[in-house]
Amino acid sequence: MTERLVIVGGDAAGMSAASQARRYREAGDLEIVVFERGHFTSYSACGIPYWVGGQVRDRDQLVARTPAEHRARAIDVRLRSEVVELDIAGGRVRSRDLATGVETWTGYDQLVLTTGARPIRPPLPGIDAPGVHGVQTLDDGEALIAALAATSGRRAVVVGAGYIGVEMAEALIRRGFEVTVVHRGVEPMSTLDPDMGALVRDALGGLDIAVAGDREVTAIRTGADGRAHAVAAGSSEYPADVVVLGIGVAPETELARAAGLPIGGHGGILTDTALRVLGYENIWAGGDCVEVLDLVSGMRRHIPLGTHANKHGQIIGANIGGGYATFPGVVGTAVSKVCDLEVARTGLREKDARAAGLQYVTATIESTSRAGYYPDPAPMTVKMLAERLTGRLLGVQIVGREGAGKRVDVAAVALTAGMTVAQMTALDLGYAPPFSPVWDPVLVAARKAVRAVGERG
Amino acid sequence: MTERLVIVGGDAAGMSAASQARRYREAGDLEIVVFERGHFTSYSACGIPYWVGGQVRDRDQLVARTPAEHRARAIDVRLRSEVVELDIAGGRVRSRDLATGVETWTGYDQLVLTTGARPIRPPLPGIDAPGVHGVQTLDDGEALIAALAATSGRRAVVVGAGYIGVEMAEALIRRGFEVTVVHRGVEPMSTLDPDMGALVRDALGGLDIAVAGDREVTAIRTGADGRAHAVAAGSSEYPADVVVLGIGVAPETELARAAGLPIGGHGGILTDTALRVLGYENIWAGGDCVEVLDLVSGMRRHIPLGTHANKHGQIIGANIGGGYATFPGVVGTAVSKVCDLEVARTGLREKDARAAGLQYVTATIESTSRAGYYPDPAPMTVKMLAERLTGRLLGVQIVGREGAGKRVDVAAVALTAGMTVAQMTALDLGYAPPFSPVWDPVLVAARKAVRAVGERG
Repeated sequence: MTERLVIVGGDAAGMSAASQARRYREAGDLEIVVFERGHFTSYSACGIPYWVGGQVRDRDQLVARTPAEHRARAIDVRLRSEVVELDIAGGRVRSRDLATGVETWTGYDQLVLTTGARPIRPPLPGIDAPGVHGVQTLDDGEALIAALAATSGRRAVVVGAGYIGVEMAEALIRRGFEVTVVHRGVEPMSTLDPDMGALVRDALGGLDIAVAGDREVTAIRTGADGRAHAVAAGSSEYPADVVVLGIGVAPETELARAAGLPIGGHGGILTDTALRVLGYENIWAGGDCVEVLDLVSGMRRHIPLGTHANKHGQIIGANIGGGYATFPGVVGTAVSKVCDLEVARTGLREKDARAAGLQYVTATIESTSRAGYYPDPAPMTVKMLAERLTGRLLGVQIVGREGAGKRVDVAAVALTAGMTVAQMTALDLGYAPPFSPVWDPVLVAARKAVRAVGERG
Repeated sequence: MTERLVIVGGDAAGMSAASQARRYREAGDLEIVVFERGHFTSYSACGIPYWVGGQVRDRDQLVARTPAEHRARAIDVRLRSEVVELDIAGGRVRSRDLATGVETWTGYDQLVLTTGARPIRPPLPGIDAPGVHGVQTLDDGEALIAALAATSGRRAVVVGAGYIGVEMAEALIRRGFEVTVVHRGVEPMSTLDPDMGALVRDALGGLDIAVAGDREVTAIRTGADGRAHAVAAGSSEYPADVVVLGIGVAPETELARAAGLPIGGHGGILTDTALRVLGYENIWAGGDCVEVLDLVSGMRRHIPLGTHANKHGQIIGANIGGGYATFPGVVGTAVSKVCDLEVARTGLREKDARAAGLQYVTATIESTSRAGYYPDPAPMTVKMLAERLTGRLLGVQIVGREGAGKRVDVAAVALTAGMTVAQMTALDLGYAPPFSPVWDPVLVAARKAVRAVGERG
C-alpha cells in the first residue's frame, strides 16, 4: 500500500526531506506532497544579501531546485498553498489555496513540519509602512531591489547589527547607498562577546558604514506620502529613503502550537535526535522551526541557519525512507563577511558560559592569516574560552580579514570532539607560508588559553 | 648551582627550545649554549621559495630572531661552530670553530639535538657541478638567487615534484624562467594518491610548468665550462641553465648514530612523547632529525616540517624548564600553493593504509569553495579514505583553487579525535555563501564515504 508523506514548508529542510525520502522510496511506495505558501522552493535565503548587492545577478541562481524539477521526481509541490491546521488525531492537514481561498483536507501517514522562521517585526509605529523591508524570502528580496531602483534618495538605514544586518549594510553600500546600522546592543554582532564586537564596529567604520549602537528603535517615521522617511531611536532620528529590518527571526510554530505539539523555551518544536517530534511516532520537524541541542552547554537553542536546515531535511528523509540518520546537535558555528572583514564564532560566548553554569578563562591573541613575511598577511584577532579546571574548549571568536573566517572550523571540530585547549596545542594543522604563520592563530590562542587555565587552577 | 643546557643546531626547533627554557629558568639557574654550523638562527626554510620568487624581498624577513636577539636573552649562540662528537658518557660535546678549525669540549647537564635534515643528493655524475642548487638553507637560497641573476639563459629544471619542487617551479616562473619539473613518480606530489596527483599535473600544465614524470634522473650534464647545462633522465635530456634539487631530505643523525643513540627505521632519532631520547634521562631531540608517531596508522614517520619543529622546541624547552608538555604525534597534514593551485593532504594515502594493514573505502567528490551562485566559486576535488567496517576517517586529500587548502584542517582535527565519517557528516562547520556551499565540500565527501562504508560492510 502506498503511504503518503505530507511536508509543510517547501524550502531547504522540507525539500531536502522530500528529495532524500524519494531516493529511498519510489513513488509507488511513498507519495510525497509538499505545501508551500510562497512562490518558490529550495532557495538560498542566505544568498539574498548578495543578490541585493549585485554579486548574484539573477534570482533564479538562488533557487537550487525549481518546483518543476521536484515534480519531475514525483514530488507533488503545491505552491501558494498554506497549511492552516494540523489535525493530529485525524492524521490530516487542512490547506488553503492562496489564490482561490479554497480549503482542502489531506491525509498523511508521515508528517514533516518545516515551517521555518518568521522575521521579528516589533509592533512599532510605521513598521508596516512602504519603504520598510524584510529580507527573509525571495519575495522580500525582489521587493527591496525594486524599491532601491525606484528611489532617488541614497540614505539607507539597517535596523539590527547581526549577520543579516551587516551583510545587508554591505549590499546597500555596493548599490551606492549611505548606510547607517542602528542597533540596540552596546556593540554590533551580539553573537560575539562585546570586546570582539568592538573590533567589528571599528572595522565597519573603516568600510564607511555608520554604526549607531545602544539605540532601541522606537518608531519608523513616515512622510505625507505615507512612506518611511526616518528611523527614530530614542532621541535620535536617522533619515532613511529605505529601511531594512535585520532584527532576527523566531521559529514559525503557530500550527504546531495549535495542534499541541511540544514547544521548547526558545519557541521551537522539540524533537529527538532522529528529528521525530517528541512523543509522536510519525511526525518529524527540522530547519528553522525546531530547537537543537547545543553540544557545548548541553542546553537547547534556536539557530536558524541554512546549513542546519539542509542537514535536518536529509536526516528526516533518510529516516522516513527506512534509513538511519541523526542530528546530534550543534556547536553554534557561524561565519560572515562584510566587504573584506571576516567574522566567525563557534561555541559559547562568555555570557553563554555563565548561563550554563560553566566557569571559564579567556585568551585573546592577534596574529595573521599568513606568515608575516609573505605578502599581505591579513591580521586577525582570536578569542578563546576554556573551562576552568578541565581546560575543555568552550568557544572561539575570530575577527579578521581574508583567511580568518573559516579557521573557526578547527574549533568547531575540536568542540564536537570535546577537546581540551592543551590537546589543541598539539593539533597538526596545515602549514605553509601562504596559508598560515608557523603557529596557526588558533594554536597560538590555545597555548595562551592553556596558560590561563593553569593560572586559574 | 647553574646547570648547562647545550643545544646542537640553531634553527626552529633548537632556538624554540632555548627560548622556552629561558622563559622558565633564568640565566643564573640555566646556562644555554647553542652550536650552529651555519650563519643564521631561527629562520624559515619554508619561506625560501617565496624569497627566490620575489614575494619576500629581503633575506632578513625570513629570520624570526637574530643571534643578537637571542644573545640579549642570555642565550649563548655560537655561529659557524659545528658539533663533531657527542661524548655521552662524559656528558660533553666537541665542537669545531669553522673559521679557525679550533676544537673545544663543552660539558652539558642537559643536551638537545636539533640537527635538522640534509637534502638528499643522489651520487650522480655532475650533481656537485656549479649551477646545481639545493634550497635547504638561507645560504642555499642566496646562492640560487645570485645564480639566477647571473645567468643569461632562461631554462630551469627542477628535480623532484614534491612540495619544495612545485613551490620552486612557481618561484622560477615568477622570475621569468621556463620551468620543467622532472620527477620519478607516475604523478607529481607523491604525498597524494596518484589519482589526486594527476589533477596537480593537469593544473601545473595550465600554469606553463612542464612536468616530466616517470623519469629517474641519471646524470647532470656539464659543459666545457664545468657548469650544469642539462639534466639527463634515461633517454631524455632536459636543457638547463639552472638546476634546482627538490628531492627531499633525510634526518641529519650522524652525530647521534656515532654516539649510539636509538635511530628508527626512517633514520630519525627515537624519542618518548616528552621528546626525551629513548633511554636517556637528560638528552632530548626534536625537529627534522626525529621520527614522530603517526596517530592514524600507529607507525613512526619522518616528517620534516617547520611547524612540527617549532612545536618540538617549545615542548623540549618547557620540559627542561620544569614545565610539562608532550608531542602526542602527527596526522600528516601538509598544504601547498603553486600559483593559484592549492594542494593539501592529511592522514593516510591508499598505500599508507595498506602498509598499516588497514582496509578502507574511498570517496572522491567535486565541489566549490563558495556557494555556486556567489562570484568565482573555486572548484575543488576532495578525496576521503575511511576504514572499512568502523568508518573511521583515515585521510583526506584536496586539490583545488583559492579556499581549498586550509579546509584540510577540519579533517586533521577529526583524525586527531578519531572520528568516523558518519560523525563528520554532522559537523557544524561555518557556512555563509562567500565561504562555502551550504554543504561544505568536506561534509559532502564524508557523506559519500559513509555510503561507501555501508556498501563494503
